[in-house]
Amino acid sequence: MKRPAAARRDAATSAPEAGQQVSDDTLREFIGYHIKRAFNVVQADLNQALKPLGLRMVTYSALVLIVDNPGLRQSQLAEALDVERANLVVIIDELEGRDLITRDRVPTDRRAYALNPTLAGRRLYDRALEAVRGHERRILNGMTEETKLAVIGAMSLIRQSSGGGSKGG
Amino acid sequence: MKRPAAARRDAATSAPEAGQQVSDDTLREFIGYHIKRAFNVVQADLNQALKPLGLRMVTYSALVLIVDNPGLRQSQLAEALDVERANLVVIIDELEGRDLITRDRVPTDRRAYALNPTLAGRRLYDRALEAVRGHERRILNGMTEETKLAVIGAMSLIRQSSGGGSKGG
Repeated sequence: MKRPAAARRDAATSAPEAGQQVSDDTLREFIGYHIKRAFNVVQADLNQALKPLGLRMVTYSALVLIVDNPGLRQSQLAEALDVERANLVVIIDELEGRDLITRDRVPTDRRAYALNPTLAGRRLYDRALEAVRGHERRILNGMTEETKLAVIGAMSLIRQSSGGGSKGG
Repeated sequence: MKRPAAARRDAATSAPEAGQQVSDDTLREFIGYHIKRAFNVVQADLNQALKPLGLRMVTYSALVLIVDNPGLRQSQLAEALDVERANLVVIIDELEGRDLITRDRVPTDRRAYALNPTLAGRRLYDRALEAVRGHERRILNGMTEETKLAVIGAMSLIRQSSGGGSKGG
């Protein structure tokens, strides 16, 4: 007893059958919904690519920022990653526990910690970037360079719509 | 003692000063990074917009799908939302506890539950969509319709790069 998918069904008796398409037409009006769904794929594929290296999206991002900005303060990293300081501690502990980074007190500011990569951290950075380039090729899925640049421009526009920091995680 | 931002600093002694720009040049090569950062803003602004209604991104999406697809099975909703079944239970409990939806056994399949909106659920759906339209205008931030459509096309391409379901949360 198959029925065609409808945007809004009128009664419980017209429940979608198992296997029948669920309508998300209302949600699809919104660009935010499309971004969310694409992000789910990006995150899942990236985490899969990083798994053999023992990294996840957020620990990878943290490692890259620390290698590119040696001496980075924890507070600067929290801001750059859009995470709360409390969540940052878990990330830092994980990288430090694997001897990928060091955390040292800043001589001129006893309350601040400076983060630096170890040699092992720099090596994992190189391997991680290689894995992420493979991931990136997969998710781009044949997208033209022109479209890619249009997307990056659009994402920046959205980013700028908030005053900057979002702490979205 | 300000220094220009550099993509990679050579030693801990050249640590970025407090307030100095942290370089994310390496991460910015990747479209996934731009999508993640835009998604952080989308999620934060959407949750802010929905807060007065007692909804979050995921409970809002669930309510919309249930109103648009009355009689929806829990398993279908889990798939449509890209969430694990265990996480779905929390979402359903929240909506049912507020009398926005009902969860009834399916007579023809005793193991399945059908989800239906209540009148209160349908009313909140209308208010939520109004709030989300305001949110959408904010995040679009003057984006042209042409760019918006290009972004939606690109997000679908990324979505299709995985076999479909990602269970990314």
